[in-house]
Amino acid sequence: MNNSAASRLARQVAFIAECDKLKEIFRQTINTQSRRAENDAEHSWAFALCVLVLAEHANEKIDVLRVLKMAIIHDLVEIDAGDTFAYDAKAAAQQHDREALAADRIFGLLPADQAKEFRALWDEFEARTTPEAKFAHACDRFQPMLLNARTEGGSWRAHGITLDRAQKRGAPVADGSQVLWEKIYEMLREAVAAGHLAPAATNS
Amino acid sequence: MNNSAASRLARQVAFIAECDKLKEIFRQTINTQSRRAENDAEHSWAFALCVLVLAEHANEKIDVLRVLKMAIIHDLVEIDAGDTFAYDAKAAAQQHDREALAADRIFGLLPADQAKEFRALWDEFEARTTPEAKFAHACDRFQPMLLNARTEGGSWRAHGITLDRAQKRGAPVADGSQVLWEKIYEMLREAVAAGHLAPAATNS
Repeated sequence: MNNSAASRLARQVAFIAECDKLKEIFRQTINTQSRRAENDAEHSWAFALCVLVLAEHANEKIDVLRVLKMAIIHDLVEIDAGDTFAYDAKAAAQQHDREALAADRIFGLLPADQAKEFRALWDEFEARTTPEAKFAHACDRFQPMLLNARTEGGSWRAHGITLDRAQKRGAPVADGSQVLWEKIYEMLREAVAAGHLAPAATNS
Repeated sequence: MNNSAASRLARQVAFIAECDKLKEIFRQTINTQSRRAENDAEHSWAFALCVLVLAEHANEKIDVLRVLKMAIIHDLVEIDAGDTFAYDAKAAAQQHDREALAADRIFGLLPADQAKEFRALWDEFEARTTPEAKFAHACDRFQPMLLNARTEGGSWRAHGITLDRAQKRGAPVADGSQVLWEKIYEMLREAVAAGHLAPAATNS
């Protein structure tokens, strides 16, 4: 192996080692068995599994490989930027800027051609305009909704999230998959009926 | 949605929910930051990331999508069969039979066509004859070796693994990627030099 090839491989390995930090970024959702907080690496794997199993429900024809790539790398920016809770509007306002800086640093560890490819995948995911990005977002939101539904309300209960807010959070799923949005709607109704999700707050 | 479609989606969702148990199957390798044991979901994600980043180093031309699918599902059998430590020869003897029973049950939760597809992927992974399965195994072994190298010996030190045993464990990597095998060889030599991996046991 010549110096250039060795240096390329060294950069790839350094990137993979840096990405190990994703296992320590904890989310608000809890796992169904241990009931401990899920971390971003676990979430990324579960998201990828959803893509594999549920691809047929995408609204449009999708390139499954590209969606899987997005699933695997979509949260790496949180190594620097941290997890932003889905229902924290204040933190969300600055989220993209913090994450874009993180993307510069983290993908920048790779050889230039791969840095460019991974950044383009992340930008595509963030922009949510292609069929692949829309379906990726559908799975990214479906997965924690399923965990909440299977943990008697999980992060909904812990944070007093009401049906109207959960519905608003889930609604963009319909852009990627009408079928998955209807399934979420069904899960939300069941959670309300079971007392695991509070009905919408009233003004009275 | 008609009854048949609803039943198909219900099976898919039940499978995904069952797979959440993968997060509670702990391995002997430890994560670089917290130094706690890695679980199978984290490993499966990290393995998939290795595939994405290192695909160019496969000995033969590979279908990356199929390798990623293998990475995502390859350890699901451990939900029933448990993790078998790489250096535990006694447990390894019965491993495949236990895992095949687990595959019957777990993939059997899916609609029949997907159960067949996932089982075929797992069988292909286990058989290690296709270029995709060989490269998948290379990444599956490279990933814990990298964790050990980045945790001052990790599971090598905890279990008194010597250089000759680690080399033997790593050698099949060469069937999928000569480049990754050479990198592992380099990491093992560095670990010995740093005192994180014991040299081969002698008979003297």
